[in-house]
Amino acid sequence: MKYYQLNQANIIVYLQSLPKGHLRFSSVDNLEVQEINDGNMNFAFVVTNTLDTNQSVFVKQAPPYIKVLGEDWPLTRQRMTAEINALNYQSSVCPEMVPEVYYQSQTLSVLIMQNLNNHAILRTELIKGQYLPRLAEDLSTFLAETLFYSSDFALSSTDKKAMVNKSANQDMCKITEDFVFTYPFEHHEMNDYNPALSQAVIDSIQKNPNVRAQIAQMKYVFMNRPEALLHGDLHTSSVMVNVQQTFVIDPEFSFAGPMGFDIGALIANLYLNYFSHAYKSSTESVNYSQWLLQTIDELWYKFEDKFLSLWSDHEQSVQSTFMGKDLTGDSHQTFRQLFLQQVLSDTLSFAACKMIRRILGVAKVADFMQFEDQKLRAKLETQAIKMATTMLVNRQSYTNIADVNKLAEHVSFV
Amino acid sequence: MKYYQLNQANIIVYLQSLPKGHLRFSSVDNLEVQEINDGNMNFAFVVTNTLDTNQSVFVKQAPPYIKVLGEDWPLTRQRMTAEINALNYQSSVCPEMVPEVYYQSQTLSVLIMQNLNNHAILRTELIKGQYLPRLAEDLSTFLAETLFYSSDFALSSTDKKAMVNKSANQDMCKITEDFVFTYPFEHHEMNDYNPALSQAVIDSIQKNPNVRAQIAQMKYVFMNRPEALLHGDLHTSSVMVNVQQTFVIDPEFSFAGPMGFDIGALIANLYLNYFSHAYKSSTESVNYSQWLLQTIDELWYKFEDKFLSLWSDHEQSVQSTFMGKDLTGDSHQTFRQLFLQQVLSDTLSFAACKMIRRILGVAKVADFMQFEDQKLRAKLETQAIKMATTMLVNRQSYTNIADVNKLAEHVSFV
Repeated sequence: MKYYQLNQANIIVYLQSLPKGHLRFSSVDNLEVQEINDGNMNFAFVVTNTLDTNQSVFVKQAPPYIKVLGEDWPLTRQRMTAEINALNYQSSVCPEMVPEVYYQSQTLSVLIMQNLNNHAILRTELIKGQYLPRLAEDLSTFLAETLFYSSDFALSSTDKKAMVNKSANQDMCKITEDFVFTYPFEHHEMNDYNPALSQAVIDSIQKNPNVRAQIAQMKYVFMNRPEALLHGDLHTSSVMVNVQQTFVIDPEFSFAGPMGFDIGALIANLYLNYFSHAYKSSTESVNYSQWLLQTIDELWYKFEDKFLSLWSDHEQSVQSTFMGKDLTGDSHQTFRQLFLQQVLSDTLSFAACKMIRRILGVAKVADFMQFEDQKLRAKLETQAIKMATTMLVNRQSYTNIADVNKLAEHVSFV
Repeated sequence: MKYYQLNQANIIVYLQSLPKGHLRFSSVDNLEVQEINDGNMNFAFVVTNTLDTNQSVFVKQAPPYIKVLGEDWPLTRQRMTAEINALNYQSSVCPEMVPEVYYQSQTLSVLIMQNLNNHAILRTELIKGQYLPRLAEDLSTFLAETLFYSSDFALSSTDKKAMVNKSANQDMCKITEDFVFTYPFEHHEMNDYNPALSQAVIDSIQKNPNVRAQIAQMKYVFMNRPEALLHGDLHTSSVMVNVQQTFVIDPEFSFAGPMGFDIGALIANLYLNYFSHAYKSSTESVNYSQWLLQTIDELWYKFEDKFLSLWSDHEQSVQSTFMGKDLTGDSHQTFRQLFLQQVLSDTLSFAACKMIRRILGVAKVADFMQFEDQKLRAKLETQAIKMATTMLVNRQSYTNIADVNKLAEHVSFV
């Protein structure tokens, strides 16, 4: 079969051609298609059995270009191969937190999967001020399990290297290299600044050699540290939630990279949301801001606990350790703490890159863009940039998230 | 053609079957073979034209096992593919410093190349106390050129990732992971200690949680930092010299790894040689020890100068920079210094691993083994272990090699 584009007209025939049983429809004779226009990169459809509307699937197809920009903006379909690879891996270690895949085709760059119609995008819920009691628990599980089981602590070095090669996603990595780590910091024509944001704040990043050098270091780490199979774009619009469940979606940027990049992406977007609530003085906002900080704190320490447990359980079960025998009883512990300290430092640095790029770069977040008042937005952007700069420059000195939360509070109350 | 083993009986017929002209022989009718038994891993032969003994070639073949151990010790021939790949790369950027390759066959895992019969192994020359005026100049050029041109500063991210994949050398990396970074530190049955070396010194490494944790960090860096195409085993027996020329040979451990691993291997072996001279009080030894320290110092600062020059020349020539536009004139410089500081820190840490493993691990160096007096050897080993421990633990605080040389002097005079 050759690649062709699915559309409202041909998708039902395509679904009807697939092996029976895969799609969980009791019958494929009365299907209805709805195109979903949320995404920028890919085509998406929800297909429902009109005889039983509880039966529906989500169909996603990557065209060989960026959907919203059209065929003049080519982009290889490797991104769907990477997404399929990541979903297969994530569902093998953490099946309860990724949509169930019913059918996948690398030839058509198509995924057919569970339709999450009882869940909402996390960012939207955070903007609304919804409390999500399972969020830190679930996301720390996702991070610990996906990062640990694809690391050198769980895989043989041969299997690890094979995973790294298989997970290549060069074009998508290049987008991150440019749009996260380069353009926002060099006053690029692709950037987009809030007119009310002061030049001094922009210059505090772009004309600060120390900040620039450290951002370049993190770009280099992004490109040179295939530690684990990452989601690769784990912001709050890549998570779907309700009060009972959390799902991680859209791993099309997945590749083997530094662990802190995934954790940092989440934390960055939670802090951006924090600033969008913390400036208000209502009791409701104060409480929600505090819940956000507590969630970030829990996310880190639960991740740390779970990662360390997986690590020691795994080494006990295979009777082999990464660093060799522990002759005193505290060498393993010392290394593990040192390792997690490095992951925390990377997490804060990557979070800083991500916060800054959402303000100076082209891609904005709804948490800030919901405010039409440019001056208010500039105030929040300034706070976020101040926090990001401090996190980045002092990344080696933080040993926990509680101190980073204090920084967020300090910055938001000045 | 299928793989078969070359030997004294069939090698001439094999050479005669190759396309004419490749081997630089005026005639292949009167060839003479000498098997070379120096190496542990591979078969090696020198083939000479008896009509003109100036015409000779060096033939190296990797069998699918470790030569000296026999067929019960399998080892994939991927190591010769890696060696061919590395030699091709090295000769493309630094042709004057690697033997010229006349013919290569991945099928037979054979390399036929320049016979370096006017050159001696660097380690042997250093043990003899030979001054080599070009050593620092040449080796700094080799390091700067091979490491720079295979890095993300010279290659597009697509070409870089392709290089990393192509250079996979998993079995040889595993040998390094075990024999350099694990066994010597855990009191493994493969280890071999000088009976005169005190248990307290061995324990100062194996039972020191801080040292153990930092060695494990360096093992992790070795496995997770594909910065550049390394030689992979750049000790002083992988270099051949005379007073005019320096050649780097035997890159069978080559893979994409951290830059500091190659530089550290060289520096470690130069410091081991230093301790073998510095304990003597003769003027001759004092002078030679000082020349060694000066050579190590020059090796680093010349490497640093050349790497920085290649970097800025390259970015000027392609009008594109890794980190984006420099808006103040000092951002690029700040990043480059930070980057080289990291390479220095890695270099010192890897040098420390390499020094320790040559004392506690199974593979020894002739610089120390030349001494039959176990007590004298234990004294030098203790000095080297003290130095390595300090280098490792304080790796972040050194900004130049002059201070590391002071440490070497201090340790050798106590």
